[in-house]
Amino acid sequence: LKDALSTSLRGLVGPEGVADAGERRFHVDATESQGVSGRPAAVVLPSSSDEVAAVVAWAYAHDVALVPRGGGSGFAGGAVAGPDEVVVALERMRAVRRFDPHLWRIEVEAGLETATVRRLARESGLLFPPDPGAAEQSQIGGNIATDAGGPHAFKYGTTGAWVTGLEAVVPPGEIVVAGGGLRKDVAGYDLVSLLTGSEGTLGIICSAWLRLTPAPAASRVVAAAYRGPAEGCAAIEAVLAAGVVPAALEFLDAGALRAARASYPFELAADAGFLVLAEADGGNAEVEWTAHELVEILEVGASDLAEPTTRADVAALWRWREGVSGAVTAVRGGKVSDDVAVPVDRLAEAIEATVQIGARHGLEACSWGHAGDGNLHATFLVDRTSSDEIRRAKDASAELYEVAVALGGTISGEHGIGMLKRPYLDLRLSVETIAAQRAIKQALDPKGLMNPGKLL
Amino acid sequence: LKDALSTSLRGLVGPEGVADAGERRFHVDATESQGVSGRPAAVVLPSSSDEVAAVVAWAYAHDVALVPRGGGSGFAGGAVAGPDEVVVALERMRAVRRFDPHLWRIEVEAGLETATVRRLARESGLLFPPDPGAAEQSQIGGNIATDAGGPHAFKYGTTGAWVTGLEAVVPPGEIVVAGGGLRKDVAGYDLVSLLTGSEGTLGIICSAWLRLTPAPAASRVVAAAYRGPAEGCAAIEAVLAAGVVPAALEFLDAGALRAARASYPFELAADAGFLVLAEADGGNAEVEWTAHELVEILEVGASDLAEPTTRADVAALWRWREGVSGAVTAVRGGKVSDDVAVPVDRLAEAIEATVQIGARHGLEACSWGHAGDGNLHATFLVDRTSSDEIRRAKDASAELYEVAVALGGTISGEHGIGMLKRPYLDLRLSVETIAAQRAIKQALDPKGLMNPGKLL
Repeated sequence: LKDALSTSLRGLVGPEGVADAGERRFHVDATESQGVSGRPAAVVLPSSSDEVAAVVAWAYAHDVALVPRGGGSGFAGGAVAGPDEVVVALERMRAVRRFDPHLWRIEVEAGLETATVRRLARESGLLFPPDPGAAEQSQIGGNIATDAGGPHAFKYGTTGAWVTGLEAVVPPGEIVVAGGGLRKDVAGYDLVSLLTGSEGTLGIICSAWLRLTPAPAASRVVAAAYRGPAEGCAAIEAVLAAGVVPAALEFLDAGALRAARASYPFELAADAGFLVLAEADGGNAEVEWTAHELVEILEVGASDLAEPTTRADVAALWRWREGVSGAVTAVRGGKVSDDVAVPVDRLAEAIEATVQIGARHGLEACSWGHAGDGNLHATFLVDRTSSDEIRRAKDASAELYEVAVALGGTISGEHGIGMLKRPYLDLRLSVETIAAQRAIKQALDPKGLMNPGKLL
Repeated sequence: LKDALSTSLRGLVGPEGVADAGERRFHVDATESQGVSGRPAAVVLPSSSDEVAAVVAWAYAHDVALVPRGGGSGFAGGAVAGPDEVVVALERMRAVRRFDPHLWRIEVEAGLETATVRRLARESGLLFPPDPGAAEQSQIGGNIATDAGGPHAFKYGTTGAWVTGLEAVVPPGEIVVAGGGLRKDVAGYDLVSLLTGSEGTLGIICSAWLRLTPAPAASRVVAAAYRGPAEGCAAIEAVLAAGVVPAALEFLDAGALRAARASYPFELAADAGFLVLAEADGGNAEVEWTAHELVEILEVGASDLAEPTTRADVAALWRWREGVSGAVTAVRGGKVSDDVAVPVDRLAEAIEATVQIGARHGLEACSWGHAGDGNLHATFLVDRTSSDEIRRAKDASAELYEVAVALGGTISGEHGIGMLKRPYLDLRLSVETIAAQRAIKQALDPKGLMNPGKLL
């Protein structure tokens, strides 16, 4: 059967368009450390929108389920396929279809790495602001399909805020175009936003028109340490109350600091239990003013405050920040990490609840993330070879989702629902809201073949 | 029959919740000057989301079509009802449900005037950036339902960019909640964006969580006059190419200037055929720098350049800009005005095409609008008592839509499709894309009772 599948697919996309379904890289995403994986029936690598359309039409004709795949950096199992499913990897579709730097716009295919989009923009004095953690690995199509965030989403919004047009294939194999290289368009329902964050369950994104913006001339970063989340979150709220707009406003709690402190590039009091990182960006004078305000506000109640000024020191601080996830993983070899989001005034409660929930399940827990957006990577540390610990961590996660929702928050701020959070969607959405969502899914994918078992 | 309708509705919302369907203000919107109007069968004024739900449930049970209505400032006939339809006016739902200025967020009911939202924000040092032309009249629910724009959409985005949550009633009478007072949420499809711009055809927006941002400390404006669209649009593109980010980047063509020049507050060469207005906002130093850059760029090829510095002069300039639409109307007593949008590098072509199309139909034509977004209010001047001229103007509009689409643009940048542009939607959207849109409509409003005859 699987040979027949691959033969059919080769007929659609040529021999170079079909990969070996046994290749492990197509079985997993960033949830591998929780033991999630799946060997698909086949892997197809279309090289054009027409080929994607042919694959979807074929799948719809033969009742075959498709699992679109970008860079495989997702944290929700959204790109992991079942044994009867076909992975549609976009990695061969990475053309820059058009780039008009003087008009602040670019059209790229879905498989282009997000870091490449950012580099192209930067080389023309522009910024593509979305900066998900795995920008080198992740692809723009996947970032759009999950509406990925990142530290600078605080000032600049998530990926979706920068997408003005999409070309996508929807069942039963039609190419639809929504928006374009336009900055404004209200003709019809906003299919761009509907497909953004739909996790491949409504169609497959083939290419995107992205908005860019002039790169800020300068940036500065301030790092302030506090005793604990109460003091640190008070400082974060004070930044907002003062009307200062940082580009990024990040935090680490005590556990995350403990895991990563050995490589922290500045001084840090031994009893530091919370760290706030705030970045200012903009023109030179604006950055000076914003950084000055940030220091004035953040130093109240801080035990240590670093304000690196050299390029090397600033780079060292962000490199350290990027290493936090790995440092936390290294503590016990594995982690079950979530990305709940709460209203920012409930952040301290969510941070404290994470540790308490972990303790109830006999697990060390910590969190870090995008404080300004109330988005925390709440994490339970596990020995990844212990299925018992992984099970307990998942129970802890489930409890955490309830707490996040009780605080007025959501079960996912930026990673998506995928396979892993699907059982918990009804914590966040009412029966009526889920019914509306199901109606949309049924309308666009009546056979339920687009990334089944994900999101809804 | 109509008495029976009103009696039924009174049972749902009380006597004060039913208005006289003969009241003219419920018959028209801003398309009145084109002769568009409609007397509904009844007018209901719910005072709560529960009452909206009761009205929708009743309508679905009795196959009655509903036409939601905000401030009635729309330019597409989206709020005009037919004789068998019931208008649902949101004007009694204008509570501020919650306002957390220190956290940059507010939750308001749909009927609150947009100008009131902006005033509340301003009084707390904050900005609600969307600034549609009729902010005093228009209501936030209507602005969301049409994803209204305005001059400052260039820097800040349209209304939808500031909505983080919606409470809406969808058929057959269910209250759905999407998003909330959160800055990030990717749990499920983005119903907030789907309802935004859906023009009441999927449900009725009852309340919204809005994001706010600290108000900029200062602003400056520069007005530069040019010979014609080629020179003026070159200056606009030069602003973008230089990486300068104005808050607003507006234009007036020769005809619009001619209509409004008598009250222009500064000097203007007799042969000026194009005006560019650029605003800088931000912190004081940032504004100085941006305004300086704008002057440097815009003065190249300009015949006149005004850079008002006193508060009174700046206010006079913006007041004049707000009066342009009225001044153009005054020329012949009426106008048929569109809001096509094109990629900004095609703006000069669209401006010139507007005049040429008008000439072919024996009508004076002009345009002005949001240059940075490529969004032009292309306008054909008419004697509003002449049905022949109105007919010719509508033919001219239809031609304009074709030109806009041929230039890579859209038939509506910020006013919506409503009733008037519905016959032209297939110019902009492919058969496949319209099919996807229809499937969504069918899924959420299977009886087609929500604002029928609009958008799709």
